Amino acid sequence: MAEQKKLVEEITSMSEDFAQWYTDIVKKAELIDYASVKGCMVIKPAGYALWENIQKELDRRFKETGVENVYMPMFIPESLLQKEKDHVEGFAPEVAWVTHGGLEPLQERLCVRPTSETLFCDFYKDEIHSWRDLPKLYNQWCSVVRWEKTTRPFLRSREFLWQEGHTAHATAEDAQERTIQMLNLYAAFCEEVLAIPVVKGRKTDKEKFAGAEATYTIEALMHDGKALQSGTSHNFGNGFAKAFGIQYADKENKLQYVHQTSWGLSTRLIGGIIMVHGDDSGLKLPPRIAPVQLRVIPIQQKKEGVMEKASELTAVLKAAGIRVKLDDTDKSPGFKFADQEMRGIPLRLEIGPKDMEAGRCVLVRRDTGEKIETPLDGVEKKVSELLEQIQNDMLEAARKHLAENTRVAKTYEEFCDLINNKSGFVKAMWCGDQACEDKIKEDTTATSRCMPFEQEQITDTCICCGKPATKMVYWGKAY
Amino acid sequence: MAEQKKLVEEITSMSEDFAQWYTDIVKKAELIDYASVKGCMVIKPAGYALWENIQKELDRRFKETGVENVYMPMFIPESLLQKEKDHVEGFAPEVAWVTHGGLEPLQERLCVRPTSETLFCDFYKDEIHSWRDLPKLYNQWCSVVRWEKTTRPFLRSREFLWQEGHTAHATAEDAQERTIQMLNLYAAFCEEVLAIPVVKGRKTDKEKFAGAEATYTIEALMHDGKALQSGTSHNFGNGFAKAFGIQYADKENKLQYVHQTSWGLSTRLIGGIIMVHGDDSGLKLPPRIAPVQLRVIPIQQKKEGVMEKASELTAVLKAAGIRVKLDDTDKSPGFKFADQEMRGIPLRLEIGPKDMEAGRCVLVRRDTGEKIETPLDGVEKKVSELLEQIQNDMLEAARKHLAENTRVAKTYEEFCDLINNKSGFVKAMWCGDQACEDKIKEDTTATSRCMPFEQEQITDTCICCGKPATKMVYWGKAY
Repeated sequence: MAEQKKLVEEITSMSEDFAQWYTDIVKKAELIDYASVKGCMVIKPAGYALWENIQKELDRRFKETGVENVYMPMFIPESLLQKEKDHVEGFAPEVAWVTHGGLEPLQERLCVRPTSETLFCDFYKDEIHSWRDLPKLYNQWCSVVRWEKTTRPFLRSREFLWQEGHTAHATAEDAQERTIQMLNLYAAFCEEVLAIPVVKGRKTDKEKFAGAEATYTIEALMHDGKALQSGTSHNFGNGFAKAFGIQYADKENKLQYVHQTSWGLSTRLIGGIIMVHGDDSGLKLPPRIAPVQLRVIPIQQKKEGVMEKASELTAVLKAAGIRVKLDDTDKSPGFKFADQEMRGIPLRLEIGPKDMEAGRCVLVRRDTGEKIETPLDGVEKKVSELLEQIQNDMLEAARKHLAENTRVAKTYEEFCDLINNKSGFVKAMWCGDQACEDKIKEDTTATSRCMPFEQEQITDTCICCGKPATKMVYWGKAY
Repeated sequence: MAEQKKLVEEITSMSEDFAQWYTDIVKKAELIDYASVKGCMVIKPAGYALWENIQKELDRRFKETGVENVYMPMFIPESLLQKEKDHVEGFAPEVAWVTHGGLEPLQERLCVRPTSETLFCDFYKDEIHSWRDLPKLYNQWCSVVRWEKTTRPFLRSREFLWQEGHTAHATAEDAQERTIQMLNLYAAFCEEVLAIPVVKGRKTDKEKFAGAEATYTIEALMHDGKALQSGTSHNFGNGFAKAFGIQYADKENKLQYVHQTSWGLSTRLIGGIIMVHGDDSGLKLPPRIAPVQLRVIPIQQKKEGVMEKASELTAVLKAAGIRVKLDDTDKSPGFKFADQEMRGIPLRLEIGPKDMEAGRCVLVRRDTGEKIETPLDGVEKKVSELLEQIQNDMLEAARKHLAENTRVAKTYEEFCDLINNKSGFVKAMWCGDQACEDKIKEDTTATSRCMPFEQEQITDTCICCGKPATKMVYWGKAY
């Protein structure tokens, strides 16, 4: 057990230093390494496999709604970026600029895409002519660059991987419907696959995307009570269409501007998985997204027949469609247990001489630590059931955490006390004035996370200024 | 038939102007559009779906050999690019440079990766310590940038999508084995999935990758007799390891340099699919890579029951695992036929009132134009058989073209005549001296494509200088 202890000791305890705990997991579970370019990251096999599973499942859901994938160039000419006024103001301060191609200076500098609205608009203006061409439902999987000053693995890096959907529609109603449809798709994905419950709502104007008419968001709550914006969906109205001249002839042959949306979800969500589910033993992955769902660990593996039995069980489980790996290294069982726990593999199967004699094995749940003795006969069925159970229980645990850490404030004193001393979401009324958002941020560092779809009238007045208020807002400190 | 004629007329005939024919197909089959950034391309849904199918199949084959996916940053600091002398000389003249991040100039400029050897080496030097850490078998799917002067869709663009595998091994033998294993994997993929036969061999030193000890290639022959380098696999020996200091402790605890490989295949191969299989009616896709394998086209679709039957058949074929789409637009059958042919969909199914009465439908092969009347009962089995048949026949046709356009030259006059007047590959002996390659290129514009694994001793002397020669080389003009 000495080795096990040692391995675990290397992680800082969550309650002691949450930020360090997070960094330790990212490194020890081998998700990421730092790169020689400051603020950029190397995504290692265990981290990338998570992203591949996210991609596979999201992409399938996108395509079911009619979305097609495309690929746009990674460079945006400066003049193109400048076409939509709010957009360029929002992004220009944080883009990377290419000024030379080969040995020659460029005539016009190019930015590395921070997001691709301008490229899609430039493309759509030549691609869309008639109502028959609509809707356009395009998405791309790519990397984007934002020259952030402070960076953290997955959460904020100068380059990150994401998908960005960009759609064009005939009417404002169609665009609004698609905006909400994709937000709901993100929310369902987070809950059903990542076991992360989210609050769905609309961003205030202060927090909306540069160039959008309205931004919608899903907000998740981390273990430390901070919020993580986990996916956003924007309705652009016809603002970009007017800036870029994207028009179509309607059924009466009259020229109309299209209405557009965009929506994105990124590798940042992997940070969410870590901070919603992880514990002091390491990462804890929901079975549906785990690259490896079960690790088989032989006990007294040098005893006759043990490795053979472990291999046989691995094959049986694999044939049943379970993502399984056998740990056949020469490390001790204690080390292997700690390693499997650190990597967040949802289940382990222990098999040794005594188990073989009794015709059984031991299954251990990563989420609860529970040990379950199971007959070898039919073990694949038991494993499937347990994976389902773990998935559901992890979602329930996260829901409970969200509910217990969402509080209501009726006075400003109560509000500041909750924000500063309790962490979590605070629900409170807001008059709609940005000055109140600014004051709250200055007083508490908290921001408005969203105006949730499920509204309540908590009081009649703004938590901050006391003027009449009809909007209930989720407030919180955020990553 | 007027509409059909019109649609087809828009493609230039292959024999008239091959380059224009290629460009027409790329545009009319909606694979690509030009972007506002010169030399970059927008990959449209039909083009990207091809790339997705290539990715899916290649990625599966990589993983079967133990390869894991990772993601490296897109930026390389100038000092890192310069660490391996040959490498930087090969790539520095054609990279894009980032000089500003946000509003600030960077302390050191960064190039947008043209390839990622230097990043992987920088990563491996901290990641590899002991023989237990080897081999490392990493791959990434990403886009790369090379600031080419002349560009053509898919074949040569300033940004393109690819995969790049980078492996590290304990011994020179292991590295060589992996280099050849991946070349063979590429060749099998091209033949089995893309129906493109290739010549496998080694590049001459003149043509090898900047920094490699040896480069291996698969070369395919296009319809116009030009060669397309379709995938390469490099053995770096321990040259990069020495430049970057990548060492491991062997079993005797002695420090050794690792041996490395890299191998890549890109969207350029989509150009190969077009130019190996296409004809004057458009694209022609092998069934295994075709995003849509069969299009159902109703005849007299306004007649009672026709659309219903067409939908029903679509559902039956879909349930049988065939990638099928129904053309339910209001265009004429003639237009629909031409459109399906242009897009290269391997099979179409025609169903009209007369067919329904007779309990049959008509299947039309894209590759041969053959029409096959088939009973509706069991049509899914017939379709599956035909798709298999088309795949095999397309490979055979391409093999025949390769064989018929590979010729032998015994004298320099014969060689120049064949290169200039016949197109295709010319097999001829070479002394090993780069001066002969240079002279041949100057005289004919042809280059050495590879020294094939299957060697023959055609004559005893170099085709160019007449000195003794033991190497047989495939020569040809190339894209």
